[in-house]
Amino acid sequence: MDERLERQIGFLREIDRLKGVVRRSYVLAGERRENSAEHCWHVAVAAVLLAEHAAQPVDVGRVVAMLLVHDLVEIDAGDTFVYDRAGAADKAERERAAARRIFGLLPPDQGGELQALWEEFEARRTPDARFAAALDRLLPMLHNLWCRGKSWQEHGVRLGQVLDVNRHMAEGAPALWALARAAVEQAAQEGLLAAG
Amino acid sequence: MDERLERQIGFLREIDRLKGVVRRSYVLAGERRENSAEHCWHVAVAAVLLAEHAAQPVDVGRVVAMLLVHDLVEIDAGDTFVYDRAGAADKAERERAAARRIFGLLPPDQGGELQALWEEFEARRTPDARFAAALDRLLPMLHNLWCRGKSWQEHGVRLGQVLDVNRHMAEGAPALWALARAAVEQAAQEGLLAAG
Repeated sequence: MDERLERQIGFLREIDRLKGVVRRSYVLAGERRENSAEHCWHVAVAAVLLAEHAAQPVDVGRVVAMLLVHDLVEIDAGDTFVYDRAGAADKAERERAAARRIFGLLPPDQGGELQALWEEFEARRTPDARFAAALDRLLPMLHNLWCRGKSWQEHGVRLGQVLDVNRHMAEGAPALWALARAAVEQAAQEGLLAAG
Repeated sequence: MDERLERQIGFLREIDRLKGVVRRSYVLAGERRENSAEHCWHVAVAAVLLAEHAAQPVDVGRVVAMLLVHDLVEIDAGDTFVYDRAGAADKAERERAAARRIFGLLPPDQGGELQALWEEFEARRTPDARFAAALDRLLPMLHNLWCRGKSWQEHGVRLGQVLDVNRHMAEGAPALWALARAAVEQAAQEGLLAAG
């Protein structure tokens, strides 16, 4: 096997570990929490379906590729709960080191491309990245709504926090933010998460 | 919420069930079998990385979209083990009915597009579909190799069967088939699956 293909296959082997990174969101049946590989699949399908709701025109193929690899850093850095302020402090540094190691397994041209795509996602400055980031926030909100607020309640998350953390959805997908915001406000009225 | 967006969100909710469809392949750590959502993510990443090995030029974005949705029919029809001849008998019929129901949840234009993409994948007549199908066969072979033939042994799968069932990889990705074939023949020599 030539070295290039060997590195590509080695990368595919390494990223299998994303299936073992458990998130806070529950799968719909509610019996277990989902892992980051499942989440990446779900949010990539969402990008295929919901591109028409992006704030500006996007390149769907790029958005999908971005979402497929956006959580790979969690293999080393773990999943940092979006409402966890302590974990957020050194998150960027841990994830940068993870990106260097994991994308560094690939042939340099491909590793560089995927690392750039991941950095673009994190920076949220391009229309593609803003839309991808909006979808990445939409899915966990939907999961919480589908599971009657199970994860919000377990972690004592309040309405104000949900609105603060997810507000940037408006930059990437205003219609989806309007939908999510209304649904979460409604959920707070029903007592599925604490108001305030 | 307008009806179009409502149908799109309803579809995203329904397909969460793919996370509960368990396949024969083991995740790398070997402690559990993977589910079809995890598999779809893994094979979609493979498409992004390995497009240069396609037999003919492919549209990577289409291949990725095809792979993201190619197993959705399993939500109703279950995962049919590729070496299971009895299950194969009515597989096509069960999956067609599943495709009608599941893609039918979407707005008609999108449902029609995804159903056509799924049918293209199944028919394996275009370069995109042949490459996607080759990757869909590559991943479970790699998983078996990574897990020292665990799933082959559990199901008494022999080398001849593996070569027969996966031979069509040569149409979509000859270099990947050459790699997989050599690795499986080597595995048979090491006794990880039965020769013959």
